[in-house]
Amino acid sequence: MKFEVTILGSSSATPIFNRNPSAQALNINDHLYLVDCGEGTQLQMLRFDIKASRIDHIFISHLHGDHYLGLVGLLSSMHLNGRSKALRLFGPPELKEIIDLQLKYSDTTLQYAVDFIPTHTDKAEVILENQDITVETIPLDHRIACTGFLFREKRRLRKIIKEKIAELDIPVDYYSAIKKGADYVSSDGKFYKNSEITIAPEEPKAYAYCSDTLYNENYFAQISNADLLYHESTFLNNMLERAQSTYHTTALQAGDIALKTQAKKLLIGHFSARYKTLNELLDEARSVFPDTELAIEGKTFIVGD
Amino acid sequence: MKFEVTILGSSSATPIFNRNPSAQALNINDHLYLVDCGEGTQLQMLRFDIKASRIDHIFISHLHGDHYLGLVGLLSSMHLNGRSKALRLFGPPELKEIIDLQLKYSDTTLQYAVDFIPTHTDKAEVILENQDITVETIPLDHRIACTGFLFREKRRLRKIIKEKIAELDIPVDYYSAIKKGADYVSSDGKFYKNSEITIAPEEPKAYAYCSDTLYNENYFAQISNADLLYHESTFLNNMLERAQSTYHTTALQAGDIALKTQAKKLLIGHFSARYKTLNELLDEARSVFPDTELAIEGKTFIVGD
Repeated sequence: MKFEVTILGSSSATPIFNRNPSAQALNINDHLYLVDCGEGTQLQMLRFDIKASRIDHIFISHLHGDHYLGLVGLLSSMHLNGRSKALRLFGPPELKEIIDLQLKYSDTTLQYAVDFIPTHTDKAEVILENQDITVETIPLDHRIACTGFLFREKRRLRKIIKEKIAELDIPVDYYSAIKKGADYVSSDGKFYKNSEITIAPEEPKAYAYCSDTLYNENYFAQISNADLLYHESTFLNNMLERAQSTYHTTALQAGDIALKTQAKKLLIGHFSARYKTLNELLDEARSVFPDTELAIEGKTFIVGD
Repeated sequence: MKFEVTILGSSSATPIFNRNPSAQALNINDHLYLVDCGEGTQLQMLRFDIKASRIDHIFISHLHGDHYLGLVGLLSSMHLNGRSKALRLFGPPELKEIIDLQLKYSDTTLQYAVDFIPTHTDKAEVILENQDITVETIPLDHRIACTGFLFREKRRLRKIIKEKIAELDIPVDYYSAIKKGADYVSSDGKFYKNSEITIAPEEPKAYAYCSDTLYNENYFAQISNADLLYHESTFLNNMLERAQSTYHTTALQAGDIALKTQAKKLLIGHFSARYKTLNELLDEARSVFPDTELAIEGKTFIVGD
């Protein structure tokens, strides 16, 4: 199953030339999920050929402008481009008030439904479950209410080995039970253990999106063993004090979190505009956790790769 | 006196690749004025090296997202970048409510003052007057309340001819009166007409910004004789009906307006996303008013050139 993350923006707070505020497009089994939507996200989508019409779910972590100011523009464009199918929007409760106010004053009634699902920071919650994935909120520790999002693939059924179907003449009616783990007794009474006639599906993959947050162990257990951990790394560790006072994380801390939570791979982003080049941030995170990559606009990362 | 318009965005409604929503930066005597602020304007400013710190006045025509969704991001960045001097913001009364709500939920108190001056559409009003210019609202005819803005240079004083000062030994105390038009009687009793000892200043220039509007003669008298008329041209005239139902203007109509109001030069913009190339729009406007240019991102136009 396809499970990819494309970076649309990786800047924190103020944008800099060629670095947009936070936004990521997830492609999971050819369905698109948008995570955060900083100003200019719809322009980044045009640039990287991410079709807005294919997005049915948008997740907003919190109400700092660099994470949501592109949302009303995107919703408007979907409307103007003739969208009719419903959109699910997840975010802090106050987000709805902000959208409604702006639609009201522009005298716009969207011609598609927006199902708004408020997120909360008191505890982790499963906010979406469909045939492919579950999505949980990750309560983070920021200056205002903020949640990350944990995308987990569902465990797939076992696959029946094609040759065995023909060889043992397994009736179609049995497929469903066998895929779920049942053994098989053939019409001539022979017993086959499930493991002889099926192969295990791939292990479900998980992607954890953590932005913005203070280093805080409270969410470590929840994100443990992520195949890909995106963690904000706003500052270098020589600015630890500044990171703490603004409820952010340093690249060194991000590496430490990846190590402690046994992430398979770390992706760092949400870079302060003071860093014109990003090598130092990458080197610092890699000094603790070597398998680290930079969230660069337009780059796609395969979860579990 | 410098009087220039740099285009930051020229797209209507939905952006297209490489065409941003409405925004223009005016440089008048080395002071910057921002007119409209569609999504991504602060990124365009970074791209074209327009310093946000030099902007002290922002004018928002109306509350359709393509004209103001970049504003809160820009205000936030000014705050984060340490601005302390006051900013004057002109726009529809409801704009303040939109900004205040978003600042509230991001728990942000701007560290500089925003003096908000509401605009109205019942009649034209002078909303700004300083040493260089006056700015008037232009009540337009759009689906929601919308004003254009008319920037007029102030008439400069006459200039005393340098050689005459020495030749006639004009005392410094007389300069002010002579610059305002007074004649001069020298110490030996000789009479000099003002026109003999001064030269006329350049005629004051005017820039009219008209977006978005239905073709409506009500504002023609006010914008007459503009040195540069920016007029929206959302559609080609073969979509006149669509232009009318959405309260917009066609390129042919924009040319006609420039002709009727005796503009010196016409600048067309606010192009529908359906036009990937703009030649047809330009040709259509030029068929009526030859001195027409396209509002292209990054291009600077000198008012009165």
